[in-house]
Amino acid sequence: MRRGVAGLNEPLIGLRNGRPRLETPALILDADAFEANLQALTGMARTAGLGLRPHAKSHKCAEIARRQLDAGALGIACAKVGELLALFEAGINPLMLTAPVASRLKIDRLTEAAQRGAVLTVVVDRPDLIADYADSAREAGVSLDVLVECDVGQRRTGVATPEGVVALARQVADESSLRFVGVQGYAGFVQHIFDHEARRTENRLAMGRLLAIVEALDAAGLSPAIVTGGGTGSHLLDFEDKVLTEVQAGSYVFMDEDYRRVDLHGTGADVFGTALFLTVTVIAHNIRGEAIIDAGSKSFAVDGPAPRAYLDGREFGSIAFVGDEFGRLDTLPGKPVPSIGTRLECSVPHCDPTVNLHDFLHVVRADKLEDIWPIEARGLSD
Amino acid sequence: MRRGVAGLNEPLIGLRNGRPRLETPALILDADAFEANLQALTGMARTAGLGLRPHAKSHKCAEIARRQLDAGALGIACAKVGELLALFEAGINPLMLTAPVASRLKIDRLTEAAQRGAVLTVVVDRPDLIADYADSAREAGVSLDVLVECDVGQRRTGVATPEGVVALARQVADESSLRFVGVQGYAGFVQHIFDHEARRTENRLAMGRLLAIVEALDAAGLSPAIVTGGGTGSHLLDFEDKVLTEVQAGSYVFMDEDYRRVDLHGTGADVFGTALFLTVTVIAHNIRGEAIIDAGSKSFAVDGPAPRAYLDGREFGSIAFVGDEFGRLDTLPGKPVPSIGTRLECSVPHCDPTVNLHDFLHVVRADKLEDIWPIEARGLSD
Repeated sequence: MRRGVAGLNEPLIGLRNGRPRLETPALILDADAFEANLQALTGMARTAGLGLRPHAKSHKCAEIARRQLDAGALGIACAKVGELLALFEAGINPLMLTAPVASRLKIDRLTEAAQRGAVLTVVVDRPDLIADYADSAREAGVSLDVLVECDVGQRRTGVATPEGVVALARQVADESSLRFVGVQGYAGFVQHIFDHEARRTENRLAMGRLLAIVEALDAAGLSPAIVTGGGTGSHLLDFEDKVLTEVQAGSYVFMDEDYRRVDLHGTGADVFGTALFLTVTVIAHNIRGEAIIDAGSKSFAVDGPAPRAYLDGREFGSIAFVGDEFGRLDTLPGKPVPSIGTRLECSVPHCDPTVNLHDFLHVVRADKLEDIWPIEARGLSD
Repeated sequence: MRRGVAGLNEPLIGLRNGRPRLETPALILDADAFEANLQALTGMARTAGLGLRPHAKSHKCAEIARRQLDAGALGIACAKVGELLALFEAGINPLMLTAPVASRLKIDRLTEAAQRGAVLTVVVDRPDLIADYADSAREAGVSLDVLVECDVGQRRTGVATPEGVVALARQVADESSLRFVGVQGYAGFVQHIFDHEARRTENRLAMGRLLAIVEALDAAGLSPAIVTGGGTGSHLLDFEDKVLTEVQAGSYVFMDEDYRRVDLHGTGADVFGTALFLTVTVIAHNIRGEAIIDAGSKSFAVDGPAPRAYLDGREFGSIAFVGDEFGRLDTLPGKPVPSIGTRLECSVPHCDPTVNLHDFLHVVRADKLEDIWPIEARGLSD
């Protein structure tokens, strides 16, 4: 028996009219839109001759990772050790950890997974971390692929100077239990710049910094096989610039109100469709006659623009948060207030942390509830 | 084996020096501060001669609910059916559902729980909801205690007029499977007003509306045995005014940066201590030399003031969110940047949705990890 709302909705799986009958708040994945998004990015990467390493920080879901791998992804990127291990236990491989850690215990958990068949790539940005990975891998009798994490302007983790990166790459190459495979340079600050030309300018700056690092490694005889980074916001620019060998897009599978503001291809048109919604129910009309829904900041991550609410597939209004468990529907001009019990499907402000609030994805196609997928790595940000 | 970071930390339970060795991000409960908060509110309620019905929307944790009941609470309030059922399954009783619903299936789940011994009080704010509760209870062969939900200015759920409340109360009283026990009037908008006198003024207005409703019920021969509402922000005012017979405070067990701004007793002094923290680790120094931690918006709910960071019990700086998985420590003037691997304990912006991100509470006292408690109703906002 599935937990929470998914347990209530389990009997609807396979029913042609399951979608409109969902108990709420239920996180839903529109299968048609999801599959179209998957194919769209896969096609663009193939045309560009670049690889995809989709980032699971957005979905944390093994079924989605499996479909990304089936579509030709090189592997799955993870932000945290807990997320990576949960996906490995669910059968996902190969896996890349895209953030440095500062815990020998976590490193040992990774090399234990490698003993059991996990094909792992990790990132490093300091000498003691390289030593810890090397020691743990040697003790476990495994080998790890290692990238040097570069700061291309994100000011978070990573080494910024070419000489600093070369020194760490050499240290990795000198460890018998590690294999130097390349560099990571993630320009997270670029992804959400709305205007395409402004985003292009910033991405070129970031990728220019990464290119200088790649050239220094080439000169040092440490040419990187993998140059990884990028995201949904920069994917087209990354495919054009070809500094990266692979792109770590995540949000493209779902989309959200924040990314909808980003003009992804400079055409003003949507490149990816919205595939992630939260189904909610009108549970009251307040004293002003407005509709109150059964979801607030415990069901939506609220760090983004207001969700749009759809009724029978048509945009009907937007949601204002009025508590941790409640929202208010602000209807579009001319739309009536829906009656109590009405289900609305809402886009989400920001997909990654919203998915992190839910244990299950309800997979729908037209009016059918096709399946309910566990979000295995939900909450595993350790 | 516990999930995620709690699984990593399980071997530390009972160790005298477990707290400084926690793998992170780990949500921790300072047992001394928690127990002092519990006793403080219990003492005030006893002095005032009023009851407490602590709200589990803040903690969602059966162990905390049990301690609240042991301290004399009348019962536990829940915001959602999923939350209530999870706490009932974990042994908590009696339980009050403080929001109306619009799902016969959820109502049936409640009456099934009542068949198995759950002592339930529910709220209603419309005739068809009363009919649904009455039908479900009759079919299940159980009886439910029912409150009429009143809107005292919150503009969310509930009936605002005395005559409207009397009409619903009469409808409840006429149902053989329901028992009219009183009214609920929650002034959520009052709770977070910083200034004590301004909060008093707004609370008096809200409680004045509720008193008019109580008087109308008295006049109709439907005197409410229970008048429930209130919260951490208004608790002292509610104890003084005595319109409510019981107070539903929730956040007082934990406290957060948002509530710390509220002058709870008009004295400028903290009435409750901060008992909830997130332990994080410095995982990098960025190119500016700032410390980067391993927690962002997937570990903190970000709808509130910045977390304060403590090192060895002393305030050391604050956390700026720089991603879903990363934060930046902004140190206080004169404080050095902590080395990589350093653990910091951080207060949280807003406790209720932060707890909702985590599966476990690490219970600490001094440097000892005493226990790890499951947050049974985490994510169950259905």
